[in-house]
Amino acid sequence: MERTLIKNTAGNIGKEILIKGRAVNIRKLGEISFVLIQDYTGLIQAVWDKSIEEVKIGNAIEIIGEVKEEKRAKGGVEISGKEIKIISDNSEELPFDLSKPNLNLQLTTLLDYRSLSLRHQKVQAIFKLYDLLLKNYDSAMREEGFTEIKTPKLLGAASEGGANVFKIQYFEKHAYLAQSPQFYKQIMVGVFERVYEIGSVFRAEPHFTTRHVNEYISLDAEMGFIENFEEVMEMLNKVLRKIFAKIGEEGKEYLKIHEAEISEVPEKIPRVKLSEIKKIIKKKYGYEIPKGTDIDPEGERLAGRYGKEEFNSDFIFVTHYPWADRPFYTMPAENPEETFGFDLIFKGVEIATGGQRIHKYDQLIENMNKKNIKPDGMEFYLDIFKFAMPPHGGWGMGSERIIQQILGLGSIKEAVLFPRDVKRLHP
Amino acid sequence: MERTLIKNTAGNIGKEILIKGRAVNIRKLGEISFVLIQDYTGLIQAVWDKSIEEVKIGNAIEIIGEVKEEKRAKGGVEISGKEIKIISDNSEELPFDLSKPNLNLQLTTLLDYRSLSLRHQKVQAIFKLYDLLLKNYDSAMREEGFTEIKTPKLLGAASEGGANVFKIQYFEKHAYLAQSPQFYKQIMVGVFERVYEIGSVFRAEPHFTTRHVNEYISLDAEMGFIENFEEVMEMLNKVLRKIFAKIGEEGKEYLKIHEAEISEVPEKIPRVKLSEIKKIIKKKYGYEIPKGTDIDPEGERLAGRYGKEEFNSDFIFVTHYPWADRPFYTMPAENPEETFGFDLIFKGVEIATGGQRIHKYDQLIENMNKKNIKPDGMEFYLDIFKFAMPPHGGWGMGSERIIQQILGLGSIKEAVLFPRDVKRLHP
Repeated sequence: MERTLIKNTAGNIGKEILIKGRAVNIRKLGEISFVLIQDYTGLIQAVWDKSIEEVKIGNAIEIIGEVKEEKRAKGGVEISGKEIKIISDNSEELPFDLSKPNLNLQLTTLLDYRSLSLRHQKVQAIFKLYDLLLKNYDSAMREEGFTEIKTPKLLGAASEGGANVFKIQYFEKHAYLAQSPQFYKQIMVGVFERVYEIGSVFRAEPHFTTRHVNEYISLDAEMGFIENFEEVMEMLNKVLRKIFAKIGEEGKEYLKIHEAEISEVPEKIPRVKLSEIKKIIKKKYGYEIPKGTDIDPEGERLAGRYGKEEFNSDFIFVTHYPWADRPFYTMPAENPEETFGFDLIFKGVEIATGGQRIHKYDQLIENMNKKNIKPDGMEFYLDIFKFAMPPHGGWGMGSERIIQQILGLGSIKEAVLFPRDVKRLHP
Repeated sequence: MERTLIKNTAGNIGKEILIKGRAVNIRKLGEISFVLIQDYTGLIQAVWDKSIEEVKIGNAIEIIGEVKEEKRAKGGVEISGKEIKIISDNSEELPFDLSKPNLNLQLTTLLDYRSLSLRHQKVQAIFKLYDLLLKNYDSAMREEGFTEIKTPKLLGAASEGGANVFKIQYFEKHAYLAQSPQFYKQIMVGVFERVYEIGSVFRAEPHFTTRHVNEYISLDAEMGFIENFEEVMEMLNKVLRKIFAKIGEEGKEYLKIHEAEISEVPEKIPRVKLSEIKKIIKKKYGYEIPKGTDIDPEGERLAGRYGKEEFNSDFIFVTHYPWADRPFYTMPAENPEETFGFDLIFKGVEIATGGQRIHKYDQLIENMNKKNIKPDGMEFYLDIFKFAMPPHGGWGMGSERIIQQILGLGSIKEAVLFPRDVKRLHP
């Protein structure tokens, strides 16, 4: 008998079909047994009027049975089970009950047993939403005429100053892991004008926070022939508006499992200068952002709160970051102590950083000199500015943070399949 | 005046518009000047009845002019130029002529000046096709119900034996760069049944060949509840058939620049056992594959030739690779000296490797023992086979090789934006 996919059961009422999948729940009610089975297309319940002791939760199974209408079931049908066969059995007891609505595990346990905890319905839902984020970032960028690129993660020099970079033995030399595709995506603006990349980035930051991991997937973009950095914010705004609307539609069931509602991205996300928001936060919330930092996590949280209270927006752009805190390639603003650099804050956490870049060679070199940065190993990048680079800008966005913030997850590590931190390289 | 995109010029006949883009060619014919300008949506020609000395090839420019019908032009229109302005100039001479139909550079020069050579129309076409490959792999996999995943590239142990792995200083420990997402995608079969990944992989192989780079983008997939490894080949066949048809449609103009025709992927790609193809190659082409190797590049080339001559197919699956040559997780075949492992050869070069994997814990451990492989650092992977893994299989496919073979490029490095080899970490 050929396999029927669970999504196609409803079209087979009255017929005997074969289902393959994982037993995600098994319940008994007197003489009746219920098996909830999952394949890659959905979930369905099979019912027996006898006990089926041999099958355990987590088993890979085959079921033969008749499709019956069942109004109370999610898809409107269930299976009246005839045969059940174990394709693959558990040779050990599961360390926790995957059929409970909540795993209630400590983060460390959740991650130590990652291969199994990922099978839980609520954990699965996180990565189904993540899958939708990837899909819709892709399609939104393509709709705006961006070309997808893949740039190297092995670099010949530690870019952007050299701090927090992982070093590799590369044959007879050393190489460094890319902290961002920054230089390459800028170079590619000279080729395709609009480019985007979905790729791994690596940060050797010794952080222990709820919002840092040492390896993550960055959603990058860079666009040429801009008039100003506001065009970059407009594009990011537009793209996020599309993505969030799509995730809301296509991810409804996964959001529901987490009792989460997708935020509406305003047509125009509010924008506040960093110097302004500092004053506002102090005045409104009595919090002073520590000197020597552009903005700290508490400041971001309060900026987010202000966006919500003042504009009813879960998103707020903070703009004009100080020249001293932004990388050498950031375009200085009218006030040379500021830049045309911005952060996007979503529910109180920065999810994207972007801005306009310097596109003239002389200005770039001058800016590097002021910042005391040596050009060593960056010549391939600097040289391109001798060849008519148009005004341009872009962003880097943390994919996992978006999901963390949509669902309100306690740690970003819950939004990474196999997260990496200072202590964790397994599983 | 607002910018008009080049793709929208045809709808503006008789109107004065503003175009922004790069001057990709400038020609003079007596008193008349022609400027070919490119933005991210296309190419258009602007015409002046005077000399426009100030603009140089490669400049980022703005043009104001009137849209005129011009039957001989590609889009049916051209611009009668009024104003021209340089937005960004070249401060140095271009090292080569980007307006010629062919760059005719040596590979080393092409790569040393990569940021500029990428601007050449023919080189751009390679990466427009690459962009279409990424797009259509994505959509084909999603249509088959695969969930997109992103798995870590930093590993706590050198997997699959430890050869040819890059080592990193990772805080107080060492880490290793992933050679493939193999273990993680298998684990994810236990979660979503069907998964795919587009991601960076790193190989510390000291090769100097036309078909190896040390960092590339692998198109991976893994699927559960298979009956046999033929289902995996069927899926790869189906997916490639879709992708190639789409690239043929959507990439027509880029293929034309390279005078390349897209191959038709047969409904059923021919399959030959490795032991068979060795005999055939010897008998038909008088070439003996060296002992101690499964198949060498010349053998692959001749297998490709056989596929073409015998089945009129640019693709051929070579199956049942020897147990001795395949990784420990490969499912042994009926004849235990063979495996249910296959390679896919496209125009004489291997583009994908795949097969069925062992899904039972005991069998996996036994196979490791036979191969003398220690489980150290792989426990997180091995343990999952105690928990009802279904029969499964998948593939890893070299994205850049596909483009290399479609276009007949002399080196795979031409199909990588910024390639990495033993000597090359720049640009």
